[in-house]
Amino acid sequence: MRALLLDGSGVRLDADRPDPVPAAGEVLVRVLQAGICETDLQLIQGYKGFRGVLGHEFVGLALGGLHEGRRVVSEINCSCWTCETCAAGRQGHCPHRTVLGILDHDGAFADLIAVPERNLHVVPDSVETEVAVFTEPVAAAFQVPSQVPVARDDRVIVLGDGRLGQLCAQVLAGLSDHVLVVGKHRQKLSLLDGLGIEGRLLHERPADRTADLVVDCTGSESGLATALDLVRPRGTIVLKTTIARTQTLSLAPVVVDEVTVVGSRCGPFAAALDALAGGLIDVRPLISDRFDLSEGVRALERAAEPGVLKVLLSAQQP
Amino acid sequence: MRALLLDGSGVRLDADRPDPVPAAGEVLVRVLQAGICETDLQLIQGYKGFRGVLGHEFVGLALGGLHEGRRVVSEINCSCWTCETCAAGRQGHCPHRTVLGILDHDGAFADLIAVPERNLHVVPDSVETEVAVFTEPVAAAFQVPSQVPVARDDRVIVLGDGRLGQLCAQVLAGLSDHVLVVGKHRQKLSLLDGLGIEGRLLHERPADRTADLVVDCTGSESGLATALDLVRPRGTIVLKTTIARTQTLSLAPVVVDEVTVVGSRCGPFAAALDALAGGLIDVRPLISDRFDLSEGVRALERAAEPGVLKVLLSAQQP
Repeated sequence: MRALLLDGSGVRLDADRPDPVPAAGEVLVRVLQAGICETDLQLIQGYKGFRGVLGHEFVGLALGGLHEGRRVVSEINCSCWTCETCAAGRQGHCPHRTVLGILDHDGAFADLIAVPERNLHVVPDSVETEVAVFTEPVAAAFQVPSQVPVARDDRVIVLGDGRLGQLCAQVLAGLSDHVLVVGKHRQKLSLLDGLGIEGRLLHERPADRTADLVVDCTGSESGLATALDLVRPRGTIVLKTTIARTQTLSLAPVVVDEVTVVGSRCGPFAAALDALAGGLIDVRPLISDRFDLSEGVRALERAAEPGVLKVLLSAQQP
Repeated sequence: MRALLLDGSGVRLDADRPDPVPAAGEVLVRVLQAGICETDLQLIQGYKGFRGVLGHEFVGLALGGLHEGRRVVSEINCSCWTCETCAAGRQGHCPHRTVLGILDHDGAFADLIAVPERNLHVVPDSVETEVAVFTEPVAAAFQVPSQVPVARDDRVIVLGDGRLGQLCAQVLAGLSDHVLVVGKHRQKLSLLDGLGIEGRLLHERPADRTADLVVDCTGSESGLATALDLVRPRGTIVLKTTIARTQTLSLAPVVVDEVTVVGSRCGPFAAALDALAGGLIDVRPLISDRFDLSEGVRALERAAEPGVLKVLLSAQQP
């Protein structure tokens, strides 16, 4: 099969990679479409030292198991389901886990992927493939309200107008009437206009510290410091993006103002599929470009360009 | 009156300072005993640029108002009670507040202090003055369970065996059966033995990340990084101590492991007085030394010595 392989010398298309062999409990899935995520770009930069087939956002056709012949999406954490962490209901944090395309498990930028069957969710027929491919990042956005209660009157600020910021803003706008996105790109912020969500450039951000909740989707070392300038005392900051580099900052404001900082990663797929099926989240404006898997290296370069939101990879058979 | 004054040239005893003049809503209190806190030592080092009379932990005799003639302790935040923050019940975070001995308000290392009457709590007769002087730091320790639920089975680690660490450990040991204090001083850790609380030196700390809750009372730049090495995924870290300096660290573990970091400052006086009256918290072993106010400069030096816990100042009339 074809696969986008990350090895010691970078990313390349391997046109003749052996098909994956499903382990116990896994099924083979033919990838229909995949999405490029900021994490993929960071892995290429060396984050976590991953080696193997990239990709963790995808829709595929189950080639076996309970859902054979159905379109499926897959949760990305492959957990042991037997350790203390899994038994406590925190399977996403299983210390023995592999993660599709991120940690010790080949990913979805390929014709085929082997996935634990219990990770799969069937895509409702009404949800088109290039919408369903957003399930994983939409689920990550839904993780915010699953960790932090959000009320109608809460003043919410999303920092970052990129892929994840846009999705978090849409999810949070379903819960609060006061969602503001602060970003650096007028063109990306303009996508929010049609959704009734206010966008402001960074230098136009509020000068006072009144936000009940700030969600940092910047992927920048300065994100937390900016969030601390916006959140009210006893307010909450959610960190959505991992930053591989260390950062230097003062945590005194966290203590003095009794701020809560919550790390947030993967989220509930069921809520994401429901929202996509119900048309509550509009993902199409986020699609910047589409490539065939055979042009995958170029697609990754395109995804890293300024101003680009989501780049999709289609795995049409050659 | 006498007062320990922090000005541009350092701390000195001012033997002839004018008596404070109570503002509207304030009453005059004759200070009986005061305690030296880590924050006092940091203020002397330049933290927050405070100028004035130091001291915010004290017991005094109310010289007027509703509680005239009674022994009282005082909450330290002097709030406006009218702004949006106060109206929302977050008076401790009032943006217009002054703070006794910390921010724009003279403190308690003096013969007299003027305090908002609504900040006062009457000390029960059964609680001796040199026990009641711990009300403010005990309240700060009670702030932890007021922010974060603590269950009997929770694995709790308190980082730091100093004044605040010892009090947090005692408060948390009332809620969880698994409290461990990790510190750097065998002698301070040994104080915990009689209370049935386990203490370990830093290099003997657990090697696995299994703590449900880690409370950082180290006052050290490395506190949060150590806490991140001990807390389980989806666990909670409470930051109890302000660090004036910036620190450099990676926040990626916060995101990847979805850790919650909660800043924690002042706490409920009523709970603290109840616990002291009920003998639930044993503060006497924490008293390292006692000085008269006239020896205040020496007392501050003593409080800064390694191995010293609480140093008390008595304001006996000369």
